[in-house]
Amino acid sequence: MTSGPVWAENDQPLKENWAPSEWGADDKVGAVNRTTPTMVLSAAKLVKQGKVATLGKVYQQDMPLYGSRGWRMTIPGLPTYSPIGEQEAVANDEYLAAEIGQVGTQFDGPGHFGVLTSKGHFFYNGRYLEDDDITGYGMGSLGVEHVARVGFVCRGVLLDAVTYRGGRLPIPISQSMDDPGIITAKDVETMIRKQGIDPIREGDCLFLYTGHGDIWHPSMWDTYNAAEKQKRIAEFNAGGPGFGLSACEYLVSRKIILWGGDTAATEAVGRDWGGENAQPFECHIKMMTRSGIWNLENLDLSQLVADKTYEFLFAWSPLKIKGGTGSPGNPIAIY
Amino acid sequence: MTSGPVWAENDQPLKENWAPSEWGADDKVGAVNRTTPTMVLSAAKLVKQGKVATLGKVYQQDMPLYGSRGWRMTIPGLPTYSPIGEQEAVANDEYLAAEIGQVGTQFDGPGHFGVLTSKGHFFYNGRYLEDDDITGYGMGSLGVEHVARVGFVCRGVLLDAVTYRGGRLPIPISQSMDDPGIITAKDVETMIRKQGIDPIREGDCLFLYTGHGDIWHPSMWDTYNAAEKQKRIAEFNAGGPGFGLSACEYLVSRKIILWGGDTAATEAVGRDWGGENAQPFECHIKMMTRSGIWNLENLDLSQLVADKTYEFLFAWSPLKIKGGTGSPGNPIAIY
Amino acid sequence: MTSGPVWAENDQPLKENWAPSEWGADDKVGAVNRTTPTMVLSAAKLVKQGKVATLGKVYQQDMPLYGSRGWRMTIPGLPTYSPIGEQEAVANDEYLAAEIGQVGTQFDGPGHFGVLTSKGHFFYNGRYLEDDDITGYGMGSLGVEHVARVGFVCRGVLLDAVTYRGGRLPIPISQSMDDPGIITAKDVETMIRKQGIDPIREGDCLFLYTGHGDIWHPSMWDTYNAAEKQKRIAEFNAGGPGFGLSACEYLVSRKIILWGGDTAATEAVGRDWGGENAQPFECHIKMMTRSGIWNLENLDLSQLVADKTYEFLFAWSPLKIKGGTGSPGNPIAIY
Amino acid sequence: MTSGPVWAENDQPLKENWAPSEWGADDKVGAVNRTTPTMVLSAAKLVKQGKVATLGKVYQQDMPLYGSRGWRMTIPGLPTYSPIGEQEAVANDEYLAAEIGQVGTQFDGPGHFGVLTSKGHFFYNGRYLEDDDITGYGMGSLGVEHVARVGFVCRGVLLDAVTYRGGRLPIPISQSMDDPGIITAKDVETMIRKQGIDPIREGDCLFLYTGHGDIWHPSMWDTYNAAEKQKRIAEFNAGGPGFGLSACEYLVSRKIILWGGDTAATEAVGRDWGGENAQPFECHIKMMTRSGIWNLENLDLSQLVADKTYEFLFAWSPLKIKGGTGSPGNPIAIY
Repeated sequence: MTSGPVWAENDQPLKENWAPSEWGADDKVGAVNRTTPTMVLSAAKLVKQGKVATLGKVYQQDMPLYGSRGWRMTIPGLPTYSPIGEQEAVANDEYLAAEIGQVGTQFDGPGHFGVLTSKGHFFYNGRYLEDDDITGYGMGSLGVEHVARVGFVCRGVLLDAVTYRGGRLPIPISQSMDDPGIITAKDVETMIRKQGIDPIREGDCLFLYTGHGDIWHPSMWDTYNAAEKQKRIAEFNAGGPGFGLSACEYLVSRKIILWGGDTAATEAVGRDWGGENAQPFECHIKMMTRSGIWNLENLDLSQLVADKTYEFLFAWSPLKIKGGTGSPGNPIAIY
Repeated sequence: MTSGPVWAENDQPLKENWAPSEWGADDKVGAVNRTTPTMVLSAAKLVKQGKVATLGKVYQQDMPLYGSRGWRMTIPGLPTYSPIGEQEAVANDEYLAAEIGQVGTQFDGPGHFGVLTSKGHFFYNGRYLEDDDITGYGMGSLGVEHVARVGFVCRGVLLDAVTYRGGRLPIPISQSMDDPGIITAKDVETMIRKQGIDPIREGDCLFLYTGHGDIWHPSMWDTYNAAEKQKRIAEFNAGGPGFGLSACEYLVSRKIILWGGDTAATEAVGRDWGGENAQPFECHIKMMTRSGIWNLENLDLSQLVADKTYEFLFAWSPLKIKGGTGSPGNPIAIY
Repeated sequence: MTSGPVWAENDQPLKENWAPSEWGADDKVGAVNRTTPTMVLSAAKLVKQGKVATLGKVYQQDMPLYGSRGWRMTIPGLPTYSPIGEQEAVANDEYLAAEIGQVGTQFDGPGHFGVLTSKGHFFYNGRYLEDDDITGYGMGSLGVEHVARVGFVCRGVLLDAVTYRGGRLPIPISQSMDDPGIITAKDVETMIRKQGIDPIREGDCLFLYTGHGDIWHPSMWDTYNAAEKQKRIAEFNAGGPGFGLSACEYLVSRKIILWGGDTAATEAVGRDWGGENAQPFECHIKMMTRSGIWNLENLDLSQLVADKTYEFLFAWSPLKIKGGTGSPGNPIAIY
Repeated sequence: MTSGPVWAENDQPLKENWAPSEWGADDKVGAVNRTTPTMVLSAAKLVKQGKVATLGKVYQQDMPLYGSRGWRMTIPGLPTYSPIGEQEAVANDEYLAAEIGQVGTQFDGPGHFGVLTSKGHFFYNGRYLEDDDITGYGMGSLGVEHVARVGFVCRGVLLDAVTYRGGRLPIPISQSMDDPGIITAKDVETMIRKQGIDPIREGDCLFLYTGHGDIWHPSMWDTYNAAEKQKRIAEFNAGGPGFGLSACEYLVSRKIILWGGDTAATEAVGRDWGGENAQPFECHIKMMTRSGIWNLENLDLSQLVADKTYEFLFAWSPLKIKGGTGSPGNPIAIY
């Protein structure tokens, strides 16, 4: 027999007073609170060529999926509805079963990531999974619909780490700041300078291109056969380059409102981490659970990279999924 | 025993040569082809106050749903993932089963609506459900991912029929142009003039506010009890005011690229239609199957209406759901 | 901020040493361990007329469902598979999303019911939801597949409480032994005697007919219109007559291996319970969590009742759903 | 543009008058009509040792699945229901999305298999997919619930082809009667004689053990690692030994009521079939579409084989899934 539930002694969120957040105990949306009309007007001025990029990847059954998540879609009937009226109109629906907010291009909302403490499962702004409004049918006050009512309209900033590093970043094998798969605070500043764009400022939405996402290639995926797909899924899921802790602390200090990239986590996830000093998903905790800066993963940044477009108007909102932990997405960049 | 499959004799799409479309036999996206950089730049100039509205409704199990469509969401585990690492990070997913592209705020793509003919089930640009690439697992060339690669960035135009008619429009009871639930071509022109906005032009995205969508109220829905919700669902689903055929023909002639509104069909759907002259969903056929102008239904237009904002930058793309008939959405209006 | 997780102080399972069970700490199946070849041979002798009854109800979307459980089925494609071979064979599948083990005729396995204690969520034989093998993807050692490997072949005994009480039993309004919706230990003994069958003995499978299940009538359901179905669902779900605590204690003492009936809980569930002395689902706890006697609910007993068949060979096993909490079923009675 | 729907010219079902069936034009259940009380009494007499075998395989996400069928199960909440009452009772459900009737141990009912003809998609007893009662939400008159109301109680007969052939049967590479993966009519008769059991007679349920099912081993599956499972799934799905056409014609002539086995099709499915003479799934058509003898696939016959039990009381019914094409199962053998 077990000796009973073992609660964490890691009370960092409690000791450090992560709650209430700077937007008050009732806040349900986090850093997107920072957006002002002035920021929106400023971002709209980035539209200069009249070009549009859609940043979502294609959702399909054989895409890379984390753990046992799934995506199954069928068309009932084909046609779903029998002919009606004189014109004999017919119509189709699609029926989907999926971890809808956590597959493919995916947005991590307030209910996705937290930390176990001695007082329960701590989430953004001091909410706990043990709270009465949070059940197996939805995340209550942590639901993504609250953020989705606000939406993200911001200056989008693209950091092109592939150009910066001279090639696709590898999956990290250590937590050393020198690991070529890790992007540090200094790397961020250097890329900003080299790419010739204004410093990161409050209200920005920041995206990182590592090249790792090209293993699951946005446009070539369906040209691979099943075996090639399997191989690529295994490599894509083995970990991912991305922001290290120093970069995340820096981004928090710059008061951005959204981070994202072309990998499944945006932060660095090592191939062989797990040793004594491992802090898996530390950026997730610092950025999201503590600071309310949500994360938009598995983006298709290829058009922006090809166009060397590093600043743009970013316009997108998650779906208003009541009680959802996240959302699928196909964000719009205009430039 | 049946006498065998009865095929339609209504060969309108064949007789009228609805295919190939004006964008060629290979086209998979329709009217969004019309968008030019000039149009995008022009639309961006509509951002004057720095305000943002999110136009999607909340997705939840007890929202109004058509026919036997469904929305079921659960949270596996709560937390879904056990604590990992020193910080004991935990995380949640949501698992959804739903007609994902045809519930709530919903986009009708090329695979949603067609017409039965003697040669098979005819869809946009002469594709047939009988084609080899279209199966019970996805719509092949009719899939919504093709449109979603392009996206909609356009001048959004809102027609406020509630102000125009002096109150919520009723569900039509006839197909008469005089039925107060039907919006005609002339009504469209009058509203444009009275609202003081530029005429409808090529590349516009046009949205109709009828008030019918307030039966399923965007912000008050969860204040109703179960019985009140049931009653409102019945009324919401009983039909809906909207564009009549003359308006749709007019909109096609104006070369808009998207139509939508606060009802489940955008076009008028009568309470007691079905008689000899009934042409159910005729606008769906004319706008979508014939003309490739897709439809975005069940929008929350309340903020735009309250702000009397009739022109805005509309920025949104459906999800790239491989083989999907449509998409959920939470579009962005910036003004 | 919450004051942290509140754990139960009701440590009945710990104080009363409900674990290990009488079949050892490793046991995963409970009372079905009692079945011997002699019992099976004896049960087979009850087959005298060569008649068969199937005891499951029809699974369909508009059946009564508890809470937010669901049942959605679609046919992908219709046909799902395109013609193959010279004979142009075609085939269909059905795609289902449902709380598969807890809808309609449903079997409660070891992972379905437990009690919160100071040491965690206590389940049969001292397993806890906090155990490592139990996750949001399956019940591990509590999974129904372990019981399903054994199966139930037993003397089926039917108690006809409708004949005994002179009509359909009402939903109880109190916990009084005199409430006409409650069946007591004495009632059980009296029914056995009046129905002229042998006393309940070790290894029996015992079923109770209350008439409440006829609100969701096994054969007439689809003759009702939607409004009638809604009304009946509300009444069916409002509670149910059934065994009271004395009956359950008696059945445990008689060492039966399965209990079931024509209601959603088999035990009495009151219409207005919840007061100071309420012990909701006390029989569930005593029979299942403590004693490993599983429960088969929402049976169609109508043919057995019509035939006045009170003893029969019962042959059925749950599905081997790895990690499932329960199972759907359509048990066989032979007599 | 396609030249329109191409209908089959193979009108075998029409030319041969496969409908109405011998049980009349209204019949929805097929050969199970043959069961008589005498047969049931006779079958019950086969219970001699008091032993029970459960014949279903374990349903789990990583089992072999045909095509794009799936099995996804999650536990909402864990516990799904918060503590209620003084005893703080808690409970769990499982939520499943699956091709429920066509995965794992699976029963093919009347709506599963048919043939394309010039008059539409022909199914058992002259029903067509084009019939009004058959939609993307259910198979109407072809639904499995009709068979499930009757159920299968019969003499179970096990043919042990592994002992007969001296080892696991290979996947056929030809349609030659001499291919070691094919069981002929003569093989059936020889096995019956060698195994020392009574000739096949009307009302029997006949099961074939080929050893192919042990690639997906009933008890060892979870001892394999992921790579080993992948390899075995590929081999299991590559085809399967089983009955050839002569055997099926013979079984029809013997008037059995159910056929099944340890493979995914029961009939032989070749590794490299598809040439000029290929008749894929010809037995499916002859046994089911024409003769109403349904098929129970992917059985776990290991206990019966180990016990050399070739005759037994078989008792099982599919689930009453309204409009389902098939059913999962865990049949009971008693001997």
